[in-house]
Amino acid sequence: MWRASVFTLYPDMFPGPVGRSLAGDALARGVWALDVHDIRAHGLGRHRAVDDTPAGGGPGMVIRADVLCASLDAGLDANDSRPRLLLSPRGARLTQARARDFAATGGIVLVCGRFEGVDERSIAARGLEEISIGDYVLSGGEIAALVVLDACVRLLPGVMGKQASGEDESFEAGLLEYPHYTRPREWEGRPIPDILLSGDHAKIAAWRRAEALRITQERRPDLLETGKPGK
Amino acid sequence: MWRASVFTLYPDMFPGPVGRSLAGDALARGVWALDVHDIRAHGLGRHRAVDDTPAGGGPGMVIRADVLCASLDAGLDANDSRPRLLLSPRGARLTQARARDFAATGGIVLVCGRFEGVDERSIAARGLEEISIGDYVLSGGEIAALVVLDACVRLLPGVMGKQASGEDESFEAGLLEYPHYTRPREWEGRPIPDILLSGDHAKIAAWRRAEALRITQERRPDLLETGKPGK
Repeated sequence: MWRASVFTLYPDMFPGPVGRSLAGDALARGVWALDVHDIRAHGLGRHRAVDDTPAGGGPGMVIRADVLCASLDAGLDANDSRPRLLLSPRGARLTQARARDFAATGGIVLVCGRFEGVDERSIAARGLEEISIGDYVLSGGEIAALVVLDACVRLLPGVMGKQASGEDESFEAGLLEYPHYTRPREWEGRPIPDILLSGDHAKIAAWRRAEALRITQERRPDLLETGKPGK
Repeated sequence: MWRASVFTLYPDMFPGPVGRSLAGDALARGVWALDVHDIRAHGLGRHRAVDDTPAGGGPGMVIRADVLCASLDAGLDANDSRPRLLLSPRGARLTQARARDFAATGGIVLVCGRFEGVDERSIAARGLEEISIGDYVLSGGEIAALVVLDACVRLLPGVMGKQASGEDESFEAGLLEYPHYTRPREWEGRPIPDILLSGDHAKIAAWRRAEALRITQERRPDLLETGKPGK
């Protein structure tokens, strides 16, 4: 079973939205499992302090290495070989290919930072890999962890109704997805493109591919340079 | 007051994690407001159907334009000028600069797709702008909407404890953030770099800037090409 372990100061944010819908159904059916660890359980002193001021000065607080690593050591088996991901805007960016890799392993460990971040020494000492969901800053790693979980879980076997539903979509062929239409045939004076109603499957496939290329060229030409649209 | 309106098939996913911590405190204090609209309330027939099969064939289901737009029309004033964002992997990518822009307006409208997506005609007819949080696919727009909300809300005046806490962080100066350290001074044989304990503020600032540059060069050289690190 694919297993995710989350380390956070806000354990009650989980499973949250991944406890609903597709991912939630799969969780209830035992397709994947989730364990959530409260870093504060290893906090120091009467107030269970987890953070302290940054060495060298500056605003905000930094999560202590000793506290974070005590939490990781208590929550993970020594021989646990799952990727240990620290959600951080400094990390390599999550991609669909990365999500496929994670979904193909036995699971992942997700460490959620807060405040200014975690003490750098904990990253090296426990082999954490920094990963970013995008070029923006969040108030903590929790929502980013939910993104990684959702991106992975939907790719596990038996989660999507039709496995095929994953293959045409954005990024899987290095292209953004073509436009979709459904009933009614005409709406507010706007018709569905004739070709989609023609029943000619070869023409429809060609139209969709051309539209996917056009949209990718317009919006994300970078995908055409670095991706493999010829696949 | 900054106001977010969310249109979704999973209204109980909101406010979820943005109802906690920094964003949740700000919501409770009235720094921002959230209204959530269940698209299914405008579904068709006894089963309140919201979707139908894609014109031209293929797997999955597409959200109907008539249903989605009835929901939008009922939930938004005709003169509402907030950006109307459709969370979609086909959109332009969210950036920190975009989040700053959204936070500086009166608020945003967030439309959460599901299944294969929404009927293309609804996008043009209601002036939706597709926006993506990253190059991966989620099971729906809800978690992406939570990301956009969190990225914006933390930038609203009065949300972060110290306003300054936002200025040094990743992306704000076109660089990834420098490493952080805090007590203890030595941990598992790993010391805090001497310079951070020197008390020499000019040297500390120079070290941090050099580290930010080094990390950006190693991990995200693309930011140095397109960003403005000289700021």
